[in-house]
Amino acid sequence: MTMPMTSLSFTEDTMFEARLIQGSLLKKLVDAIKELCTEVNWDISNSGINMQSMDGSHVCLVAFNLRADGFDHFRCDRPLTLGINLGNLAKILKCSGSNDIITMKADDNGDTLTLMFESEKQDRITDVDLKLMSIESEHLGIPDQDYSAETSMPSSEYQRIVRDLSSIGDTVNISATKEGIKFSAMGDIGTANITLRQTSSADKEEENVKIEMKEPVLLTFALRYLNNFAKATPLSSTVQVFLTKDLPVQVNYNIQDLGYVKYYLAPKIEEEDEAVAADE
Amino acid sequence: MTMPMTSLSFTEDTMFEARLIQGSLLKKLVDAIKELCTEVNWDISNSGINMQSMDGSHVCLVAFNLRADGFDHFRCDRPLTLGINLGNLAKILKCSGSNDIITMKADDNGDTLTLMFESEKQDRITDVDLKLMSIESEHLGIPDQDYSAETSMPSSEYQRIVRDLSSIGDTVNISATKEGIKFSAMGDIGTANITLRQTSSADKEEENVKIEMKEPVLLTFALRYLNNFAKATPLSSTVQVFLTKDLPVQVNYNIQDLGYVKYYLAPKIEEEDEAVAADE
Amino acid sequence: MTMPMTSLSFTEDTMFEARLIQGSLLKKLVDAIKELCTEVNWDISNSGINMQSMDGSHVCLVAFNLRADGFDHFRCDRPLTLGINLGNLAKILKCSGSNDIITMKADDNGDTLTLMFESEKQDRITDVDLKLMSIESEHLGIPDQDYSAETSMPSSEYQRIVRDLSSIGDTVNISATKEGIKFSAMGDIGTANITLRQTSSADKEEENVKIEMKEPVLLTFALRYLNNFAKATPLSSTVQVFLTKDLPVQVNYNIQDLGYVKYYLAPKIEEEDEAVAADE
Repeated sequence: MTMPMTSLSFTEDTMFEARLIQGSLLKKLVDAIKELCTEVNWDISNSGINMQSMDGSHVCLVAFNLRADGFDHFRCDRPLTLGINLGNLAKILKCSGSNDIITMKADDNGDTLTLMFESEKQDRITDVDLKLMSIESEHLGIPDQDYSAETSMPSSEYQRIVRDLSSIGDTVNISATKEGIKFSAMGDIGTANITLRQTSSADKEEENVKIEMKEPVLLTFALRYLNNFAKATPLSSTVQVFLTKDLPVQVNYNIQDLGYVKYYLAPKIEEEDEAVAADE
Repeated sequence: MTMPMTSLSFTEDTMFEARLIQGSLLKKLVDAIKELCTEVNWDISNSGINMQSMDGSHVCLVAFNLRADGFDHFRCDRPLTLGINLGNLAKILKCSGSNDIITMKADDNGDTLTLMFESEKQDRITDVDLKLMSIESEHLGIPDQDYSAETSMPSSEYQRIVRDLSSIGDTVNISATKEGIKFSAMGDIGTANITLRQTSSADKEEENVKIEMKEPVLLTFALRYLNNFAKATPLSSTVQVFLTKDLPVQVNYNIQDLGYVKYYLAPKIEEEDEAVAADE
Repeated sequence: MTMPMTSLSFTEDTMFEARLIQGSLLKKLVDAIKELCTEVNWDISNSGINMQSMDGSHVCLVAFNLRADGFDHFRCDRPLTLGINLGNLAKILKCSGSNDIITMKADDNGDTLTLMFESEKQDRITDVDLKLMSIESEHLGIPDQDYSAETSMPSSEYQRIVRDLSSIGDTVNISATKEGIKFSAMGDIGTANITLRQTSSADKEEENVKIEMKEPVLLTFALRYLNNFAKATPLSSTVQVFLTKDLPVQVNYNIQDLGYVKYYLAPKIEEEDEAVAADE
């Protein structure tokens, strides 16, 4: 017996359709980026979904990739671009349950993204049409780069450190050596240094702090943005932080079996020099 | 050994006295209605306690009944009416613990309602005198009516649907057919439909969605009020929603072994017609 | 292999150094007093750490003692006084984890207090320099006094009672008799009395309500301060309340194996008389 009540019909016009059994990942992804970027283009092709956008103040860059093979079903007949207000999409995703299966669909004219949320037992079905918009954007090339230091740590540890230091000051010095990573902040009330030692003994591999480095590095960043990146914590148990002198830091959350979200933030050059001078 | 410290003495003057071992139900009931109605009359007789009141904006009607036989002790010598400020009563009930036994008492002159909260082990006794007031009210007859569709669903599901749709729009279309109940909202960001299918397979009887209908029906309501009715969710695991064309919806929470709280809300007639037209 | 990254070096200059394995106690202590007192002197000697301060409005007195033998390591070469902004210290202690070991250190010139937080596994080390200040204060002698009634109750019970009564009125009458302790508040909406009976049957000794008294006593206090004292609840499972006619109440939280925090609040003399009259 079919149920005629849902308006979601996959007709000939459908050119994009993607089904994700672990639908909560989509909700977490949108929550991880919606405060930095409000209106963005999602580029969809048969290899998956990509987004790349500067934040509203043009200070940092946010990018994500969801691979087609990470979905339980994925079809895209022709590349298409969906202009999405992330705040509105987040409101809609709040209507999905944490165990819901999520299906996305768009057709040729591309003025609507249809989302369907199915409860595990199929007894509740939500379908939503989100109005799309035309958004101008230039594609920014992100050059591959060799990093001076590639570090990995539990994402909850990163979240906690940048949150804690925010109560001390506005900027953080991050320095990496063979022994560990040091985060330092200075403010009116005093100075604070948090040091993570390299470890290999944690019960779970992802709880270890790992550092691979070519040269020691010291960089200064605005804590506000590093704090904002930590909104991706629910997506991954670990975070990679890549550091190179005078170049943007890359903060990378891998989404298991599906893709990644990456954040890039330029260092504060002048203040770094001062900090180095003060530190020496 | 008696303890002379509490001022609560049940003297000859007492004409109303009711003891409820599961006192938290009284707290939940007051929390379920206090935002809609601020000053109400409780009508007390030897059959129990009744309240019936329009909300402050005279848009919806709230009624509850607590049966005398649902209390662990109930005595009312003569019918009496207690004028109660529900906000003040809620403040007082916040002083009761979740496992406290609650006793209410009023005497002839009726200017005070005395509440006593006893902890399980009787080691903490709270007694409070709430000032009563004189409230004018007219008794509103609620005619029994035949409903087009009588539906039942988990109260948590109802709560979630009306909350979720509130982030999409201000009004909701509710339609019932044999297959299920559909809630639809439309707003600036798009449209959303949530469909509950009729089920009979849930592990617990109260988790099923049930629909008994004489004819399909489609009605439009202000979400704000339906949302407010959901404050009764802690009182019952299921909620009944009764729908009839052009007549108020009745949202009904049964309080096990004690009584019920019911809400009535008139449909938005004009907008419903538009909605029907738009839907067809 | 030593780790050169932390700036904390215990040099010859160090004259105060104290290590507390259960570092969370220090955090809880500062949270318990920081809203009453903003800038205070900590007096440090080889017997431990003492503080004594009037609150900002000069209505109540706060005192704590942490005994040297309660620390896992304690060294103080010469008595010294540290002028501390408790709000800033609280911000810094927020950077410590709940299982961290905390070490405090100060040297001769006394313009900085250095705190070190070590995680259980030693894989995260935080070191913070808190700027100290010069604070004028006079030492207030607190005379030993014989109390009319010495009561002890679960600290969670005390917390709940003063919080609950705050929703009824601004002041509380506390009366103690052999049978129990009664807290009464009166406000626009009515009056409330909460009575705790003396008990001896609780499963855990600290859950009992105990009263040792020389004479019955009735005193009136501002609820706002009694409420504030309850911020020490996490420090101890029981609280002692000492009452004497016309003298300040003492509210005492013992910190197991380490020391105590005590609060003193003068009664509201005039209002007490009225209250007594009204009660009779």
